[in-house]
Amino acid sequence: MSRVAGYYTHEQQGEHEYADLGAFVLRSGYTLSGARLAYRTHGTLNAARDNAVLFPHMYSGTPSSLDRHIGPGLPLDPERYFVICPGQLGGGMSSSPSNTPAPFDRGQFPPVSIVDDVVAQHRLVTEHLGIERLHAVLGWSMGAQQTYEWAVRFPAMVPRAAAFAGTARTPVHNQVFIDLHLELLRSDPAFAGGFYADAADVRLGLARHALAFSLLGFTPEWYRGEHWRRLGFASVDDFRQGFVRAWFAPMDPNNLVSQATKWRDADLSAHGNGSLPVALGRISTHFFVVPFGGDQFFPVADCEEDAGHMPHGELRVIDTPAGHFAMFGLLDEDTRRIHAVMAEMLSS
Amino acid sequence: MSRVAGYYTHEQQGEHEYADLGAFVLRSGYTLSGARLAYRTHGTLNAARDNAVLFPHMYSGTPSSLDRHIGPGLPLDPERYFVICPGQLGGGMSSSPSNTPAPFDRGQFPPVSIVDDVVAQHRLVTEHLGIERLHAVLGWSMGAQQTYEWAVRFPAMVPRAAAFAGTARTPVHNQVFIDLHLELLRSDPAFAGGFYADAADVRLGLARHALAFSLLGFTPEWYRGEHWRRLGFASVDDFRQGFVRAWFAPMDPNNLVSQATKWRDADLSAHGNGSLPVALGRISTHFFVVPFGGDQFFPVADCEEDAGHMPHGELRVIDTPAGHFAMFGLLDEDTRRIHAVMAEMLSS
Repeated sequence: MSRVAGYYTHEQQGEHEYADLGAFVLRSGYTLSGARLAYRTHGTLNAARDNAVLFPHMYSGTPSSLDRHIGPGLPLDPERYFVICPGQLGGGMSSSPSNTPAPFDRGQFPPVSIVDDVVAQHRLVTEHLGIERLHAVLGWSMGAQQTYEWAVRFPAMVPRAAAFAGTARTPVHNQVFIDLHLELLRSDPAFAGGFYADAADVRLGLARHALAFSLLGFTPEWYRGEHWRRLGFASVDDFRQGFVRAWFAPMDPNNLVSQATKWRDADLSAHGNGSLPVALGRISTHFFVVPFGGDQFFPVADCEEDAGHMPHGELRVIDTPAGHFAMFGLLDEDTRRIHAVMAEMLSS
Repeated sequence: MSRVAGYYTHEQQGEHEYADLGAFVLRSGYTLSGARLAYRTHGTLNAARDNAVLFPHMYSGTPSSLDRHIGPGLPLDPERYFVICPGQLGGGMSSSPSNTPAPFDRGQFPPVSIVDDVVAQHRLVTEHLGIERLHAVLGWSMGAQQTYEWAVRFPAMVPRAAAFAGTARTPVHNQVFIDLHLELLRSDPAFAGGFYADAADVRLGLARHALAFSLLGFTPEWYRGEHWRRLGFASVDDFRQGFVRAWFAPMDPNNLVSQATKWRDADLSAHGNGSLPVALGRISTHFFVVPFGGDQFFPVADCEEDAGHMPHGELRVIDTPAGHFAMFGLLDEDTRRIHAVMAEMLSS
């Protein structure tokens, strides 16, 4: 078994369950036969079936990436809530380039979208789990993009929501970043258009790709103030290699490409006939917009605009030198503030 | 003649003069025999020899890149000042990978530093031009780095100075950016460790490298507000290809590598026994520090610190959606504010 096949397994990612989606027609027009959605749950659905919280994950994550934000004593307490963490299409646990047979394997996995994720998650929640209304939806980054899509697509099911470090439409500057990191990943000759035999062969591409995240996943202040020292690293290079590069190293490049292209195309304005303010204006959810100050992917200014267009939008800015990656749980004070907003949202 | 050889010529870059440096010993310990410094001048040195202004250029530029900031009616009026624009070592006009014979040609050009540039410029100014004291030194980006080096190394010669969008020491986050764009440039197999036959063969590397500058040379607001439209482009892609990629396309990759590694290593703290505040504290120059708001290479916060450590430092922040690239003359209002600070500095 290859190193990468090992990464997207229960040994590495913890226990997951799976919902069969059958022949799932994607927004791109392709039919993904035998599609399935992975999910990981915490806690128990109560008898009234009204304590479910949906928590989709970010780029390069899996459902277990969110474990740190769920637990006894935390706002997302499994004693109280039934937390459902669905795996993104393309994320490695759900149907993805790395686990789909020909003719949709590897470099020929069809394009997937945030809408596909949310439609699949809706089937999981309603058909598989028998839940008619969620207590809340929340997410970070691409998880935030899915949260927006949930709120506008299934308004009756989402009374409250929180989008951490994400916007309703990917900012153009962020799209330039995505172009850049995809170029880095694909620049490795071993990538071979996605038809490599073993993901580990594309280690140069994965390392180059990580460089882009060392640059913009954090803030200038992260480096200026040497905040990486608090993670126990001895130098900037030590941090970049030991944290950022190491995070991405075991992943499947095609899975990353699948997610990144989805991230790039996120755009809620389709719900407003091309107008983002109109789309956001339709959201009846009590919606907490939580940008991280200094986030270079989803700037505070864009998040402010999103919040301003929603009838029940609320802005909570969390300033941090960690920037976008604050939700990795890097600095305890950030995590506390993130959890405080979660608590506020869950009880609103 | 190759396309690139054509780029670093008088046909493309206008008239330049040359100062022979002889066997020039670099800080890296290499001896560059037959070294020469290109320079371009505007105006005339007066009889008192006290109207000279030194204006070194930025990364990827040549002395003629600065032409737009010099002219009748502008603060740098050739009727009044003798403006000397030296070409960086590695910049293509002065001794560079693209014009140096073996054993220092192409991929084996020795490392050059900001100190080398300033020492060479000092010889140009004193030995070749017979000037004992400059009226001022100013520069943008890497030109700002050279300005800082001038002020601390030859204090008696620099009564006033201005550093636009540059710092006394390259911020660590900026170094990560440099690592990234160098990786992009070198990722092209045609780069071949710098031993390509024709720079045009490395067009993929040049295009990838340009992508990094599309990302961080501008600001999120540049894209959010579609300010590129004011340059006459029809779409983001049109702008990225027609402006950013086109700017770098005719350049020599080794020249860019030489400049970028120099940029990465800029550090004034050697003048303070490793302490940047001590080094800056030694500067007696009336020194205008002019960050561009939103600059993602040299953040305002770093420039503020530099200004605060100089006894006669003055901070002038120019907010602009163009960010670091404001000094390309992209937006007229930015250029007016830049010239206003030049005028203030020159008459201080």
